[in-house]
Amino acid sequence: MSDGLLMEVCVDSVESAINAERGGAGRIELCCNLLEGGTTPSTGLLQVVKENVRIPVYVMIRPRGGDFLYSDWEVEVMKRDIEQMKSHRADGLVFGALTEDGRVDTELCMELLAASRPLPVTFHRAFDMVHDPVVALEALVSLGFERILTSGCDSSALEGLPVIKRLVEQVRLHLDIQRWNHRKKPSEDSRRLRLSGVPLLCSLQQGLQHEV
Amino acid sequence: MSDGLLMEVCVDSVESAINAERGGAGRIELCCNLLEGGTTPSTGLLQVVKENVRIPVYVMIRPRGGDFLYSDWEVEVMKRDIEQMKSHRADGLVFGALTEDGRVDTELCMELLAASRPLPVTFHRAFDMVHDPVVALEALVSLGFERILTSGCDSSALEGLPVIKRLVEQVRLHLDIQRWNHRKKPSEDSRRLRLSGVPLLCSLQQGLQHEV
Repeated sequence: MSDGLLMEVCVDSVESAINAERGGAGRIELCCNLLEGGTTPSTGLLQVVKENVRIPVYVMIRPRGGDFLYSDWEVEVMKRDIEQMKSHRADGLVFGALTEDGRVDTELCMELLAASRPLPVTFHRAFDMVHDPVVALEALVSLGFERILTSGCDSSALEGLPVIKRLVEQVRLHLDIQRWNHRKKPSEDSRRLRLSGVPLLCSLQQGLQHEV
Repeated sequence: MSDGLLMEVCVDSVESAINAERGGAGRIELCCNLLEGGTTPSTGLLQVVKENVRIPVYVMIRPRGGDFLYSDWEVEVMKRDIEQMKSHRADGLVFGALTEDGRVDTELCMELLAASRPLPVTFHRAFDMVHDPVVALEALVSLGFERILTSGCDSSALEGLPVIKRLVEQVRLHLDIQRWNHRKKPSEDSRRLRLSGVPLLCSLQQGLQHEV
């Protein structure tokens, strides 16, 4: 961690996890199959990674590559995997689900978030596939996701920076409105404010490369 | 099962597993990431598949796509995954390991086979990457693998049929020599003879397609 920024690195092997920690990563996102953008890793991989790094390990829950519209069977598998990863000491989880018409699948997200408690959850780059990022972000904040991974709905975070800036502004506005309406505690605001910083910090490559 | 042949289908989803059983498959090989030839599935997927099919489910233990030369970390992950899959009711396991010079990694295979007991184990299509299939088959029979998956070191089982036939002959010869030397029981011979038939029966496609 430097300049208050936490660097998160996506890895799909023990070697990469150890290298990420040595290289200064503050958090790991653990997947298998990074070639397809990451899918649910095996519990064996999580076990060995947890025994060999000290930084938090967030685990991808994604039953396959491709889109983010899941069948009932796939949802059942995701729920079992959430249980499994919790019982094998995952520090957080990472998933996302969309509807056929490109909105956040709020109903399914609520179910999966409930199954994930008390772990913090990141909404992953399914976000970059939504039709309306402003509406989607609103939904995710309401649902209680702790952070989102996004490249601003573009091919890289650098190219998506204008959208990201707009989203960050939106979250701030959202927070202000909420504070005014509900007199939320500052710590709650600060938790939600993190949404604004983290989207820039995720790598989808093996090892220690990161997009900024 | 028809004509004494058991059809095994490789699947990477609950849907495909159910379809395979409905279509007459006698056994399932469960993977994720079939695009890369199959890697270790999540335990969540195994759980839900086991609850929804009655035929035996053999689980792929392969930490990544690519070659079959594994680092110490990868071996550690494979051992943990073997434990996990055993405790989640896998009926058999499927793995393979080669040395840098294209031979069967007998030392590692022995370790993994020991960890897999009492489950039967299939040596997977790493076999098609060996330099000398005759020597490799000899090694696998000695090690105690119950079957191998191969397309005869060619792009499909049909094209590899001459090699497969040679291998089947080799196993028979091997059995005859063994019987003569060690007076093995017929049941042991019959177990080993199965090596000769099964290579033709595996599909590497999703759903119910099979190579013959």
